[in-house]
Amino acid sequence: MRLHQFFMSSASYRVRIALNIKGQPYESLPVNLRSAEQLAPEFSALNPAQLVPVLEHEGESLSQSLAIIEYLDERFPNPPLLPRTSAADRAYVRQLALTIACDIHPLNNLRVLKYLRDPFGQGDAARDAWARHWIELGFAAIEARLAASPRRGRFCFGDSPTLADVCLMPQIANALRVKTDLSPYPAIRAIEQNCAALEPFRRAHPMAQPEANPP
Amino acid sequence: MRLHQFFMSSASYRVRIALNIKGQPYESLPVNLRSAEQLAPEFSALNPAQLVPVLEHEGESLSQSLAIIEYLDERFPNPPLLPRTSAADRAYVRQLALTIACDIHPLNNLRVLKYLRDPFGQGDAARDAWARHWIELGFAAIEARLAASPRRGRFCFGDSPTLADVCLMPQIANALRVKTDLSPYPAIRAIEQNCAALEPFRRAHPMAQPEANPP
Repeated sequence: MRLHQFFMSSASYRVRIALNIKGQPYESLPVNLRSAEQLAPEFSALNPAQLVPVLEHEGESLSQSLAIIEYLDERFPNPPLLPRTSAADRAYVRQLALTIACDIHPLNNLRVLKYLRDPFGQGDAARDAWARHWIELGFAAIEARLAASPRRGRFCFGDSPTLADVCLMPQIANALRVKTDLSPYPAIRAIEQNCAALEPFRRAHPMAQPEANPP
Repeated sequence: MRLHQFFMSSASYRVRIALNIKGQPYESLPVNLRSAEQLAPEFSALNPAQLVPVLEHEGESLSQSLAIIEYLDERFPNPPLLPRTSAADRAYVRQLALTIACDIHPLNNLRVLKYLRDPFGQGDAARDAWARHWIELGFAAIEARLAASPRRGRFCFGDSPTLADVCLMPQIANALRVKTDLSPYPAIRAIEQNCAALEPFRRAHPMAQPEANPP
């Protein structure tokens, strides 16, 4: 398996966690978003959306982190990243994951923050406030869901990590980068601690990637 | 089944199409986003993210249109909205759906356009240009994927509609609203025509909803 990714991209981070949980080794192919390597013709041919991550497996090149993770969960079922218990349980997990993947993360993407600077002329403080605004709205919704749900355990669903936790941890890293105050979200913070204790999460962290630690 | 929705919301439109394809009748409960009814305490209790749609079924209230549609596909398997052929085929369909649901639609949401006006001070023309920018990037990626894929048929995947088409049609309606030129996307336009000919799509159209045609 080959993973085209950027160490700081939170969608890449999600897929790294999922691959680690599944115990699937992969070859990492760094795509530096800061030097716009995702716009190069070779990468565009692989993914016309010019976004990371892309997973190459058995002749397919798959994009969109959530589609990749559902694929991994179907191909390598153990341990599961979606509950096997019921469709309603899976909907609960997917709903939490999509709150991050649709309602928070797309607004704080590098390409979006660039547009806010040029042509919209917004400086760093205004762009950080924008990022925090969507994170706070999304985290408040997730916190309310978690706090009210009998499904919550040590993780978003029960006592093993699922797709929801796989999305939550990278979003927390992004939140801290723009100095979001996490104190209003005790349920999220408890899950964060439980994830951070797990080796598949630790090994997927941006700062644990070779690109973060050049020789 | 009870669907809390707004006729102009494209995430609601997706779920209407899916319910119609599945042949599942539902009670529609309008939530008027223009008068901010989604912020009311009763609706916030149902969905703390304060977003439509929400589907109530068997005592559960499910949010996030893609989680709802995956749930419907699991509970009411026929006709399928995800290919049964292979995990790679399902990844292809989910990838197209997520390109819309993550890379295009969140940036053109009503609440985002409001933030661009206040506090960012962007007028209508600048906000329409912003919306078109993300639509054009996303549609170019989808067009390239479709044009290159042997999986494409009369619809995004083969000759029956899937989750990808269910997301594509509402996004096309949004694109036309901000005067996006669709001529660079012949594969998308051919699929649009094939979807528009189907009764489950026609009946789900915003202009076919009672709220669009007050007495």
